[in-house]
Amino acid sequence: MNEVKAYLSKVAAITDSRMNDLLPPPETYPASIHSVMRYSLFAGGKRIRPALVMASYEACGGNFGDDKPVIAGAAIEMLHTFSLMHDDLPCMDDDDFRRGKTTAHKAFTEALAVLGGDALCIYAFECLTKLDRIEVIREIARALGTGGMIGGQVIDIESEGKKVDKKAVEYIHNNKTAALIRTSVKTGALLADAPQSHLEHLTAYGNRIGLAFQVIDDILDEEGTTVQIGKDAGSDRQRGKATFPSVCGIAESREYAKTLIENACAELRFLNNSGPMLTAIARFIETRIS
Amino acid sequence: MNEVKAYLSKVAAITDSRMNDLLPPPETYPASIHSVMRYSLFAGGKRIRPALVMASYEACGGNFGDDKPVIAGAAIEMLHTFSLMHDDLPCMDDDDFRRGKTTAHKAFTEALAVLGGDALCIYAFECLTKLDRIEVIREIARALGTGGMIGGQVIDIESEGKKVDKKAVEYIHNNKTAALIRTSVKTGALLADAPQSHLEHLTAYGNRIGLAFQVIDDILDEEGTTVQIGKDAGSDRQRGKATFPSVCGIAESREYAKTLIENACAELRFLNNSGPMLTAIARFIETRIS
Repeated sequence: MNEVKAYLSKVAAITDSRMNDLLPPPETYPASIHSVMRYSLFAGGKRIRPALVMASYEACGGNFGDDKPVIAGAAIEMLHTFSLMHDDLPCMDDDDFRRGKTTAHKAFTEALAVLGGDALCIYAFECLTKLDRIEVIREIARALGTGGMIGGQVIDIESEGKKVDKKAVEYIHNNKTAALIRTSVKTGALLADAPQSHLEHLTAYGNRIGLAFQVIDDILDEEGTTVQIGKDAGSDRQRGKATFPSVCGIAESREYAKTLIENACAELRFLNNSGPMLTAIARFIETRIS
Repeated sequence: MNEVKAYLSKVAAITDSRMNDLLPPPETYPASIHSVMRYSLFAGGKRIRPALVMASYEACGGNFGDDKPVIAGAAIEMLHTFSLMHDDLPCMDDDDFRRGKTTAHKAFTEALAVLGGDALCIYAFECLTKLDRIEVIREIARALGTGGMIGGQVIDIESEGKKVDKKAVEYIHNNKTAALIRTSVKTGALLADAPQSHLEHLTAYGNRIGLAFQVIDDILDEEGTTVQIGKDAGSDRQRGKATFPSVCGIAESREYAKTLIENACAELRFLNNSGPMLTAIARFIETRIS
């Protein structure tokens, strides 16, 4: 797994440097908004979505470190951070910690957390215009909207404290988490001008690792400690959140995550060994519960 | 002024119909998010921004009712509504009424007002991809970001209850309000493939009517009734908002608005009478305080 950690570090370094260049300097007027944006964006995420953009781009014949997948990864990371900032708000999940740091509305104000999230969303689209690829903007906007990430957030909040079935939890996770992970993989393939058949296999791969990622997050919330996961452990259960362990128990959730990872890797067979990093990243996601 | 009212009605009808087609039907799962989006979007705005896109498009040689400026106007109206939904939140302006109706967080929940605003912002960018014009997406994203609308919202909130000067109020209004109005005018010109010199004059026109629009809004908040303006009258003063009347009085604010309208119309001289509707809209904005 060291190769994945090294890959994540390399991608994180390039992505962070590019995001630093793309965003206005922190002292730019109004300084408070640029500070809150940078505070949340540089709070120490693993940059797994930018790594997936790059690994998919490479698997489809692109070169590591090309600027287009770096920009796309940076934009997707801004969009991910935007969703976290709003998700953590008192009227949503009301979380005090994220990635081991106090959340934006606690460190700044609620108004700045709302506007900082909005600004990251808008900047992400401005950055995407640098790619000169309308279909990439369309793909990402669709993954984010009410048929994707936002739809998942809505049902997640509306399911709190209610008895839900596995299908509802799958809807939430497929949309709230997997949609942005799937679009990361797809964006890398689109930027490398991959043929339609590649796109279909990579989309299926992205959906499966995205769903597995969230199932594993649910398991860690049940079993991990606050220090390990960087946010309040056990908070899902306390809040009556719709999670996989809550509908089918820890053991079945583990099995399900493993099956998803197997099926995700199976989708990569068509690549004839040209996507070893995508396989390694899928396995790496699995090790979080191994 | 009847011609402007008729033009606004015609544009509103086309824009509303197009927005109705562009957004998922209200019963689409998750129904709550599509309901809140439509509730705020169809709350009876005058659609002045879509009218400016169309009038500018026509002034630069385009045909009334072409689909591209209609889509752009619809997207800009979604972005305007997104900004209002977040601006009305308890942690921001905490407004109970907007356009004569209860605000989204009052009629639904705070979480749905946050996510509904987010979703309208994202849908707007998805709609803009239909235009196949990267530079239009870039122009609109820049007008919305921290160097535009969001920047204005930040300073607006941070100035509450503080003694500010005319320069600060100008910054707020130039960004919070004028940026999106200016970008509406510019977008119409871009879609009509206007030459650079046209773009410059129209940008100056847009900035001036945008600033005048907000100065007049400030005056109406001081002098109007809740029924007239569709939101709580006098709320700016109660809240210690940075407004033109608060820094230079009603009389000077009126003079300033009139001068801005004159200067805006002067920018249209280059059009050799091909932009009568842009002049009429500027005069119409002025009549709100005449």
